[in-house]
Amino acid sequence: MASSTVEPASAGNGGSVPPVTPDQIMQLGLGFWGSKTLLSAIELGVFSTLASGPAGEEDLRRRLDLHERSSRDFLDALVALGMLERGPRGYRNTAATDFFLDRAKPSYVGGLLEMANARLYGFWGSLTEALHTGELQNEAKGGGEDLFAALYADPDRLRGFVAAMSAISAGAALAIAQKFPWDRHHTFCDVGSAQGAVPVHVALAHRHLTGIGFDLAPVGPIFEDFVASFGLEERVRFVAGDFFADPLPAADVLVMGHILHDWGMDDKLKLLRSAHDTLPDGGALIVYDAIIDDERRENAFGLLMSLNMLIETREGFDYTGADCRGWMAEVGFRESYVEPLVGPDSMVVAVK
Amino acid sequence: MASSTVEPASAGNGGSVPPVTPDQIMQLGLGFWGSKTLLSAIELGVFSTLASGPAGEEDLRRRLDLHERSSRDFLDALVALGMLERGPRGYRNTAATDFFLDRAKPSYVGGLLEMANARLYGFWGSLTEALHTGELQNEAKGGGEDLFAALYADPDRLRGFVAAMSAISAGAALAIAQKFPWDRHHTFCDVGSAQGAVPVHVALAHRHLTGIGFDLAPVGPIFEDFVASFGLEERVRFVAGDFFADPLPAADVLVMGHILHDWGMDDKLKLLRSAHDTLPDGGALIVYDAIIDDERRENAFGLLMSLNMLIETREGFDYTGADCRGWMAEVGFRESYVEPLVGPDSMVVAVK
Repeated sequence: MASSTVEPASAGNGGSVPPVTPDQIMQLGLGFWGSKTLLSAIELGVFSTLASGPAGEEDLRRRLDLHERSSRDFLDALVALGMLERGPRGYRNTAATDFFLDRAKPSYVGGLLEMANARLYGFWGSLTEALHTGELQNEAKGGGEDLFAALYADPDRLRGFVAAMSAISAGAALAIAQKFPWDRHHTFCDVGSAQGAVPVHVALAHRHLTGIGFDLAPVGPIFEDFVASFGLEERVRFVAGDFFADPLPAADVLVMGHILHDWGMDDKLKLLRSAHDTLPDGGALIVYDAIIDDERRENAFGLLMSLNMLIETREGFDYTGADCRGWMAEVGFRESYVEPLVGPDSMVVAVK
Repeated sequence: MASSTVEPASAGNGGSVPPVTPDQIMQLGLGFWGSKTLLSAIELGVFSTLASGPAGEEDLRRRLDLHERSSRDFLDALVALGMLERGPRGYRNTAATDFFLDRAKPSYVGGLLEMANARLYGFWGSLTEALHTGELQNEAKGGGEDLFAALYADPDRLRGFVAAMSAISAGAALAIAQKFPWDRHHTFCDVGSAQGAVPVHVALAHRHLTGIGFDLAPVGPIFEDFVASFGLEERVRFVAGDFFADPLPAADVLVMGHILHDWGMDDKLKLLRSAHDTLPDGGALIVYDAIIDDERRENAFGLLMSLNMLIETREGFDYTGADCRGWMAEVGFRESYVEPLVGPDSMVVAVK
């Protein structure tokens, strides 16, 4: 009769079953607290500020324009969340936050989280509606402007977006450079290259390769600047085009990273068919995304990314390795395999 | 030059330091995805629906009115998040979600998460503003109506709120019943009793005790119903009053749970002084909350709860055991100690 944490219906053996508690449920349900705390910290520039050295609470409060009511709670929450450390000289970044959340560093991944803070957090407030209707919940909702159209029309927003994409893709790009057998190929093309993380890392690691970044025209200058900053302009060039309307540039290896999940089934097949048509015999297609495990029970990030596609796109969805290999066979590739890259990302490689 | 995950500035020893990766940062920054997914599941009644037995995807989709675009992603995400299980007979609750998230059970803790979904998620979108201004961000912002005033004026909302409080307090209430030396006392009063989780669990465990629930008048009928449902109406009664305006009912032991954190420093001291004045010599005050560890680096939940007080109240904040013991000494208690209860909650006991 009494509600308690120690006697759920399943423990019919006199209480020797360890009690179920609501802790995991509450921690997940209120998990947006810690998440938004980090997002606000990135927005406020906490980590960029501390990249120049440790600082005490009063100093940080002044520099970040924090009200004294909750500044200490905020900073100590970041310590408890593992995002800051605190010692005799005050607050300081961890090794990871110093490397990845300092705006001044090329390794900055905060761009995507700044977008999450400014856009996604709010849109995800409409998740229940999206689950009922199947309709996206971002700026394009109800006839508003499509996300990509708006981004590509605004050079500053585009620059920020593609830089964010690069930072998130850097780990996968490095893993692709390391794990794929590049020595048997000569040329590659990254389809939907954005800033160019993959072409850069692959070209740096394999001096015999030349490559192309293929994306809509506004990306061109951003891509070329990025490639030039690594001294690779002789070996990596930009080709402007629309991967639905135009033929893909010829190459031995095509790469499609964080591309397929933006599109519905028909468009996914269209892209895969286009890749198959473009490749020579023996050529390869590398698809990478937060590939969901075939049993669809482990890769929470991939499954949640698919819900993010519900929020952000008209028809996009994430998929399993088995899904992708099936589509690749359907468009004519003779063999394929799945290989983990880093974190939640894997690549699915198809050979013609 | 190349941005990568393997060579942060701190690894000056040729790369034998394990690489820092952005995974923990990204998981936390995007943690609102998993959090909102659970909140939407509670809103949709997923767990209440499955409490009657397992169900397949198509069946659930129909019963929950989910669009087919993302229903499978949503349900499988809940599996990957540990909130559902999936087997040959379809989706089913876990032991914990069946016990704590089925609306039909007295152990339901979803009420607080329903409030988090309907109110807190949105208000926390304004965390950055709150950190700059020190101002709350809920309905009372800019002169709107105070949360408690609105709640207490609406019997249905009040019933839901106090039931949610009870469910969350049940674990702590049981622990207080077990850990405090009740045998040396005769009477108790729970100050700000809400529905009455503490009086009920304490009275059930200690048959020699009689007790009082003290709260604003609208809570009375709800408290009395709850107490009567346990057959305790002869031993536990309700006294209506305002713990700032009225004297506290006399008792050997006073309890203040999830009360102090709602108030600013002056009001905290006022309540503690009032408790000290009311108690007989040898009497005890039990304060409980998500007590922050003295070093303010471990109890992330307590620190984040303090930020929730920033969002929800004009002056409220959470505190450490050392803070509380200091205030208790200041108002005249002769001794005090801190004892963990369950999960993030602890009690701070003061003896007069």
